[in-house]
Amino acid sequence: MKIILPLLFISFFTLHGFGQSNQIIKKKFHDGKFNQQDTTAGYAEAILVDNTLYISGWIGRGTIAEQLQEIYTSLGNILKAYGATYQNVVKETLFTTDIEAVKNNNAVRKAFYKGDFPAATWIQITRLFSARPDAQIEVELIAHLPKSITKEK
Amino acid sequence: MKIILPLLFISFFTLHGFGQSNQIIKKKFHDGKFNQQDTTAGYAEAILVDNTLYISGWIGRGTIAEQLQEIYTSLGNILKAYGATYQNVVKETLFTTDIEAVKNNNAVRKAFYKGDFPAATWIQITRLFSARPDAQIEVELIAHLPKSITKEK
Amino acid sequence: MKIILPLLFISFFTLHGFGQSNQIIKKKFHDGKFNQQDTTAGYAEAILVDNTLYISGWIGRGTIAEQLQEIYTSLGNILKAYGATYQNVVKETLFTTDIEAVKNNNAVRKAFYKGDFPAATWIQITRLFSARPDAQIEVELIAHLPKSITKEK
Repeated sequence: MKIILPLLFISFFTLHGFGQSNQIIKKKFHDGKFNQQDTTAGYAEAILVDNTLYISGWIGRGTIAEQLQEIYTSLGNILKAYGATYQNVVKETLFTTDIEAVKNNNAVRKAFYKGDFPAATWIQITRLFSARPDAQIEVELIAHLPKSITKEK
Repeated sequence: MKIILPLLFISFFTLHGFGQSNQIIKKKFHDGKFNQQDTTAGYAEAILVDNTLYISGWIGRGTIAEQLQEIYTSLGNILKAYGATYQNVVKETLFTTDIEAVKNNNAVRKAFYKGDFPAATWIQITRLFSARPDAQIEVELIAHLPKSITKEK
Repeated sequence: MKIILPLLFISFFTLHGFGQSNQIIKKKFHDGKFNQQDTTAGYAEAILVDNTLYISGWIGRGTIAEQLQEIYTSLGNILKAYGATYQNVVKETLFTTDIEAVKNNNAVRKAFYKGDFPAATWIQITRLFSARPDAQIEVELIAHLPKSITKEK
């Protein structure tokens, strides 16, 4: 109690009393490195906040099967950087300009989940951010880390 | 203190020391049952992680009004399975091939929320996952459960 | 221990024993005020649950640059109402009917983030909720507040 009361007092003034903001701790990942982002397009490939990991939409190159292989490999590498795997993915949103083609190549995607699948929504849209003609699929993920792990860090 | 230090020591080795993964506890729901998923399409209708519930995009059959009725009835049943109601829904994303028709039938949807509405985004897109001609609407939800409840479980 | 055991007993009966629901505490914001929502369309501009803030898709008026300016100004005002800034934004989803035009005007958007960017996905779609011809961009956000702050409230 002798320790806690002064701490609450300090907290009150630093957070509210002197107009400081309610900033959060974000662990960004971009281009293979932590604490990086793309300042040209203005985004980070992934951000961990608390124990929730938000991963930006990712595209690939080549045929539909090759795009899926590249997308899920890249997303898997981001998960790995945070100490996670596809087991940690809870929501997948897939945007594509050709949903029937993606359905026909779903086996490529499914292999990455190793039989443990997330909640998912797949939508056919008009165009992705990339103007490349072989940018036909974009996949974004939400993953969770164990709370115990994120508290230790 | 005598108890906590050894626990931290054990935690260090189980979580990091022996290469174990940071797996999370997921409570999946699919086709009316917990711990189920669709291994053909590769998804689960819903996943609870911590106290956040991610529900996959859901479609219906028939007219626009009938599709909305079926979708929100089905989503309500999923919520109910987790002990939740539409009061727990914090974010709704609605994808449709005919947004004006959905707006004209919004009363069907609104009845389910009983006057307590979520944050929402509605988007008109080109095509849904289902190739059925009457698959014109797909709705996905994020719901939260009370933290106290999820801790008790 | 003398205090905790009876509390657990009460909790058991209030939460499970008498059929009460697992309702959550939501802090809604709409049209410049807390505890408001739009009962016509059936949504709230923003909902805070635990320390996660879900902000509904937002549109603007005028040219693409003017729409972006209005959208991010409005979203910034919502963040401010909750004591947050763009620093708290962890995920941005941008839907537009003209993604190349948005890319060409990205500088307008980027200025709001002040060099600290979120995870983001941009998608070109067919039509937004609004039927206005100058409703070409809709942006939704997920922001997090510090856990310590939300506990104090």
